[in-house]
Amino acid sequence: MEKTVQMYEGKAKKVFATNDENYCIVSYKDDATAFNGLKKGTILGKGAINNRVTNHLMKLLEKNGIPTHFVEELSDRETVVKKVTIVPLEVIVRNIAAGSLAKRLGLAEGTKMKSTVLEYCYKDDELGDPMINEYHILAMEFATKEEIDLIAKYSFKINEILSNYLKDANIELIDFKLEFGKTADGQIVLADEISPDTCRFWDTVTGEKLDKDRFRRDLGNVEDAYQEVLKRLMGE
Amino acid sequence: MEKTVQMYEGKAKKVFATNDENYCIVSYKDDATAFNGLKKGTILGKGAINNRVTNHLMKLLEKNGIPTHFVEELSDRETVVKKVTIVPLEVIVRNIAAGSLAKRLGLAEGTKMKSTVLEYCYKDDELGDPMINEYHILAMEFATKEEIDLIAKYSFKINEILSNYLKDANIELIDFKLEFGKTADGQIVLADEISPDTCRFWDTVTGEKLDKDRFRRDLGNVEDAYQEVLKRLMGE
Repeated sequence: MEKTVQMYEGKAKKVFATNDENYCIVSYKDDATAFNGLKKGTILGKGAINNRVTNHLMKLLEKNGIPTHFVEELSDRETVVKKVTIVPLEVIVRNIAAGSLAKRLGLAEGTKMKSTVLEYCYKDDELGDPMINEYHILAMEFATKEEIDLIAKYSFKINEILSNYLKDANIELIDFKLEFGKTADGQIVLADEISPDTCRFWDTVTGEKLDKDRFRRDLGNVEDAYQEVLKRLMGE
Repeated sequence: MEKTVQMYEGKAKKVFATNDENYCIVSYKDDATAFNGLKKGTILGKGAINNRVTNHLMKLLEKNGIPTHFVEELSDRETVVKKVTIVPLEVIVRNIAAGSLAKRLGLAEGTKMKSTVLEYCYKDDELGDPMINEYHILAMEFATKEEIDLIAKYSFKINEILSNYLKDANIELIDFKLEFGKTADGQIVLADEISPDTCRFWDTVTGEKLDKDRFRRDLGNVEDAYQEVLKRLMGE
């Protein structure tokens, strides 16, 4: 399969069309942004780590019954994925209060939620990705009732699969962001990435942050943390 | 029934205990606040109008199968209500985009929603009454699943009853805020008020605002607008 034109460049990835209209090629960058683009930087090696971690976890999810956009890893930074129309939602799954949830509800970071919290944000940089709920999604026709029910069901199941899997690598899955897409034939599949850019990973013993919060909050050892996640998941 | 000690003073009302532990007396004030208390003022006669409009609409809702806290109007400003524990949620029902929803989703004020939108805010002045969803409500135990389902069902029905009723008075119900309470025996009932302080009322023909937005946005003729609502609903 060959890249043709670049279709899209996001904050952390480029997406290329290919000579097969059903597939795209994603190329991961080392660029890092935070706070809706206000903070910019580079995390050396991040693109290759996120590509490999994402593909590893997508394969795990596929094996456990979650349809994903993953097709084939091409190289350190590039992966073939199914072409989808992205549902314009960020789905955030939260097990433990951190970041914006801790602030919103006045909870100490690290507070265990009594039940898993799903949040939806409307993907729109100009509006600052505002938090919305299912009623907004239906009224704005961002997704149908059937689609949003399926997305919620997948999100809870993904949380269960990943939380259990990561525990064996001494990583606690605090929260994470998912995006879903719709294939040409209307199937909802998991898209985007699952990486230290899009998850909060805390060491189960020390509580050390192994994710993008090291960049967001200037905690240092950013590259080391990404490398550590790759090592724990893939033994390298 | 006699007032005993003041239990609570809010932005627009005082609540007194009575010599009967099952009842309270609400006393409406002319004080007006907006933007989480940042803007303060007085709307002359507002307390009496909101008391009478609220009771009029609560009686209409009771007749149509919605349980409310309303018991008896005592005077222009004072009403006996059932003693309830307030569910710490503001339930916002939206038919047409205005205010924070228009801003959040980048919609022109006045855009008709394709379906009615419910929003929940956690009642907490210090946190600025943050918007939350049903997952937050369950995880924080602000209400049970059964309670939130009932609150949503009542809210949609109240919207239907009020929208139809107000149309006959040439008032379009744009959006409104509800609060619910739990009686000693665990029944969920509509509480708080339904007035130009808590609803957006637009004249169906001219679009003129007949509600607290006149105060929030310094549109003038604030008292006249409140008086006009009373006149249209109660013929005086």
